[in-house]
Order: sequence, then structure tokens, then C-alpha cells
Amino acid sequence: MSVSQAASSAAAESVQAVTVAGGAETTLVMRRVEERMGALASEHGATLARHAGETISAGGKRLRPLLVCVAAGVPVVQSDALVRAAVAVELVHAATLVHDDVIDRADLRRGRPTVVAAGGRLIALATGDLLFSRAFAELAQGGEIEPIRLLAQAAGSLAEGELMQRADSWDVNVSRERYLERCRLKTGVLFRAACELGAVAGAGDVDGLGRFGERIGIAFQLLDDVLDVTGPPERTGKPRGADLLDGTVTLPLIEALARDASLAQLDLREVRTADQAAVLCDRIEATGALQVAREHALGVVAEAKGELPASISAAQRSTLELVADGVVERYS
Amino acid sequence: MSVSQAASSAAAESVQAVTVAGGAETTLVMRRVEERMGALASEHGATLARHAGETISAGGKRLRPLLVCVAAGVPVVQSDALVRAAVAVELVHAATLVHDDVIDRADLRRGRPTVVAAGGRLIALATGDLLFSRAFAELAQGGEIEPIRLLAQAAGSLAEGELMQRADSWDVNVSRERYLERCRLKTGVLFRAACELGAVAGAGDVDGLGRFGERIGIAFQLLDDVLDVTGPPERTGKPRGADLLDGTVTLPLIEALARDASLAQLDLREVRTADQAAVLCDRIEATGALQVAREHALGVVAEAKGELPASISAAQRSTLELVADGVVERYS
Repeated sequence: MSVSQAASSAAAESVQAVTVAGGAETTLVMRRVEERMGALASEHGATLARHAGETISAGGKRLRPLLVCVAAGVPVVQSDALVRAAVAVELVHAATLVHDDVIDRADLRRGRPTVVAAGGRLIALATGDLLFSRAFAELAQGGEIEPIRLLAQAAGSLAEGELMQRADSWDVNVSRERYLERCRLKTGVLFRAACELGAVAGAGDVDGLGRFGERIGIAFQLLDDVLDVTGPPERTGKPRGADLLDGTVTLPLIEALARDASLAQLDLREVRTADQAAVLCDRIEATGALQVAREHALGVVAEAKGELPASISAAQRSTLELVADGVVERYS
Repeated sequence: MSVSQAASSAAAESVQAVTVAGGAETTLVMRRVEERMGALASEHGATLARHAGETISAGGKRLRPLLVCVAAGVPVVQSDALVRAAVAVELVHAATLVHDDVIDRADLRRGRPTVVAAGGRLIALATGDLLFSRAFAELAQGGEIEPIRLLAQAAGSLAEGELMQRADSWDVNVSRERYLERCRLKTGVLFRAACELGAVAGAGDVDGLGRFGERIGIAFQLLDDVLDVTGPPERTGKPRGADLLDGTVTLPLIEALARDASLAQLDLREVRTADQAAVLCDRIEATGALQVAREHALGVVAEAKGELPASISAAQRSTLELVADGVVERYS
């Protein structure tokens, strides 16, 4: 078993554990989510079925829909509103992936050709826009305004996060606070929305579960940024230090700069090859910065657990804690 | 006065005439729309204020918000719901323009640098996504589900239209029906949504006014496609036959192919330079195809007027007819 297979199998095991903890109906709800995603792709003509169909069915771990389910209550209770909410959050996530691949000119995602690689920029842009629109159309079918308000807010923040990342590109003096705000916007808010939409469907504590979700998302992004430095490429599917090559300054580099004075002269624009990036990754690792970043992520996960409302059932609490632990285990 | 100034001044006159016909409150509502668009740009941080701010404030004719207003009733009656609807439709329009410029690598729009030219692809993609999200957030504030359902539907169709256009690229055998369906998706549905949202705000005939709007949009697109062939570049801001160079087959070419057998051997991919495109435009014009396309557009405008519900007031009818005539005059 390769490292990549091991990592992916650990993630699958974690999702599996949460699904079991969510109760027998969780599988049913998640199956309805899959069916709905498949139906959406085929409702919109041959071109979309081809492109969005692949994007949607390539699937990934469906972590956000699962989070919607268990935020609604454990054992998970099937409802149309819950399925719609889970589908809508995953559609927004899929839309951002398709658009991200346009920016990164990525060829592969989840082992399949990206929409931009298969169809070009126009197809990828329109496919992302369509997935995005469908998310809101899906929620509008339910007739409830609050989930739409929450998801529109989150979708806007995702875009703001992208803009912030670009504004901070190549700037090695970016602060920890600004980096963490970027993690919140880029990743935290959609995890938050997943929990909020679940809480709305389950008539739970929207704010409390939302804060839990946001912190889980931030930890997820933090650990992803650590993984970019550690690699190995066989696991991440990209060269070590891909973020650095891209001008994206993340916590490992920020912490390394605070620990190794010799890094102060670093001009990130001069790091141009995979080999140069690997050398910089080694220097970052040597400062102990990765351990600091990992510990920060663990602290955020602990905060997340602390945000869980007192009002939730013991079963829901332990299932949401499983989700939190799964985020960490994925990277252990 | 240049040709371009004359065209733009004719459009401005037409918008002005509709604004006057809409009654004194129209100016007030449109001013509130402008204020809200400006406020939205500055609510979302410095990067967005810079990029979206320019996109939003560069403005254009605001034809869709005006259509929302007069579809709501004449004289136009000010309401928060009306302003929100007008802003939301224009935000979706602005989002598609920003994304279209990424595809076309356009440098200028309305005489100003495009978002993609000023900020690059990432900024343009994220700016479009953000404008898109804000449209739904804007409507969600109103608490009504129907406008959201209608706008999400329209936004999805816009993306489908783009996908269809790409699927048909370079195919000179595309049918009139398929071309017209593309016009409907790319342009008609957002004009339809403008009228539908206006009708919802004004408690009018949503379906009837929607059908009017859709046909006006189709005619608008048809005449735009004629203008691509006639030019002149000083008026359109792009070389004659830019669509042909892009592989986009429109009604003028479809009608020319049906009239000039010598065009049957045409391979659009061999039309690569502005000069070659101009030669093809002349051949299209020589077949009489432009007149056929223009007449088709006039027929669609007449159909639009025929769709106006019997229930509307005489003042609203004549104002909406002014809008319909304005679409034609813009191109006369």
C-alpha cells in the first residue's frame, strides 16, 4: 500500500466511523445526496452531464454533506430539507474546486482529469458558475430563506478569501492573524455553513454548531498547509512546497521566519523550481515550524470541541468529536 | 461625434426616455440602485472595492435594473424589494461580464481596464464569484423565496448558454433553432428574470412579463450578433467578425450559408486574422443575411409586445414598449 493509499484509506476510515456513529439513517441520507448530485448533473444537458457529472461523481470524501447530517442531529433523521442542504453545500464546494483548477491550471483532481484540463477554461468557468447557481436553486426549492442567507454569506466569504490570498501573494511579512483570517474565509466559513445548515434542518443551535464548524475548517486548512511542506508528493499529488511556488505564504513559513533569522532575506519570487521549493521546505522543517503549526491546529480543534453547545445530545457530541478527530487523523 | 459616441448616445437617450416614462420615482429608485451597488463594493474589503468597485461603477446602461423597475409598475413605486431585485439582477449581469472577460482575455470594457486585465485571472474569477454570491445575499435579505428561485434558475441558464456555445463552436452546421435557444439561454433568461422579479415586487403577471422580457433579450442578442458582422470596430470596440474568429456561429452566418452555396466549403478554423474575418463579413453581408437577421429580431420584438399581459396599465404598456423599441433603436 502506497503512502497515498494509506492516507486516503485513513480518511475513508474516519468518514466511515462518523457515518456509523450517525446511525443507520446516515447511510440513507448520504445515498440520497449522491443520487441528487447525479440527477443534477444529468438535468442540465449533455455538456454539463459530461463535465459537471465527472466533477460531482468523482466525489471526494463528502465531508461537508456528512457534517450537515450530523450537525442536524444524531441519530441522523432523514428529511428533504437535510438532503437539499447537504447537496447545496457540496455544490458550492465543487464549484470552488472547478474554479480553483482554472487558476492553478491543474490537470488532475482525485485522480481524474480536471474540468479545465478536459474542456478548457470556458467550460470550467461556466461549469463552476452552473454548480454555484444550482446550489441556490436547490435551497430555493425548499422554500426556506435562512439556509440561503447562510450559504450566500459563506459563498461570498470564499471569494473574499481567494482575493485576500492573492492580495497577500509573495508577501513574507504577512501576519499570523491575517493568515488565520484567510484560513477562516477560504475554508472555515463553508464548514461553518455546513454545520449551520444542518442545525437549521435539525432545529438545533445554529450559532454554536456554526462556531464548531468554522474552527474545524480552519484546522483542516492549517493541516493542509503543513502537508504542503512535508509532502510526500505521492501523497499530496503535488510537489512539496507547491504553495511556496505559488507565492502563498502559510503558517509553516511564517513560523519559520520567526525562528530562523537567516530566512529574513528570502525572496519567494526567486523560488522557482520544485528542487528549490524542496530545499526551502527542508529549511522550514528544520526550524521546528511544522510542529508549531500542527500544535496550533490541535489547539483549534480543541477550541472547536469547546464550542459544542451544551444543549446537544451525548450521541451528537461524540459524533461531532469524531469529525474533529478525523480532521487531525487525516494528517497524522 | 464619433460613430461610437453616436451609438452610445442613442442608447443613453433610449434609457432616458424609459426613465422619464417610468415617472418621477424611477430616477429615485435607480439612484438607490447605484448607491447600493457602490455600498456593496466597499463592504467587502480593499481588494474587492478596487476590482468590483470599478466593475460595478463603470456601470453601463443599467438596462436590466430599469426593466425590473418598469416591470413592477408604472409609475414606478419605490420599495426596498424593488431596489434589492434590481441590484441582484445587475450583480448577476456584472458577474457574467467579469467571467466573460476572463474567457475572452479582454483588456477593456466600457472604456476601462477589465478586472482580468487589471488584476489577473484569480482576481477576476473570485470577483465574479463574489458578485454572484452577493446577488443571492441581497435577495435573501428580503426574506422572499420566489425572487431567489427565479434568479437562481436564470443564473443556471446563463451558464448553460455558455456551455452550449462552446459545444457548438466552429460548427457551421448548427441549426437556427439551436442558435436561438443559445440566445435565449445566454441573454433572454436574464431579461426574463428582470421582468419576473419586477412583477413579483409589483404583484403583477410574472409569467406574462417574463415572456416579454425573454423575447426582448433574444432580440437584443440577435442584433448584437448582426453588429458583430457590420461593425464598424470604432462602434463595437472589437474587430468585425470577432465572433467568427472565436468560432461562434451566429444567425448572420447561418442565413448566409443557406443563401450562398460557395460558402458551404467554409472551415471557420481557417479564418484566423482580422482581415480574413472582415472578408468573410463582407461575403455574409453580400448574401442579404444581415437583413434577414435584422427582420427576425424585429419579429421577436413584435412577439414580445404581443406577450404583454392584458392586465397591465396603459402607462406600463407604453413604457415597456419604449424598452422594446429602444433595443431596436440601439442598432438602427
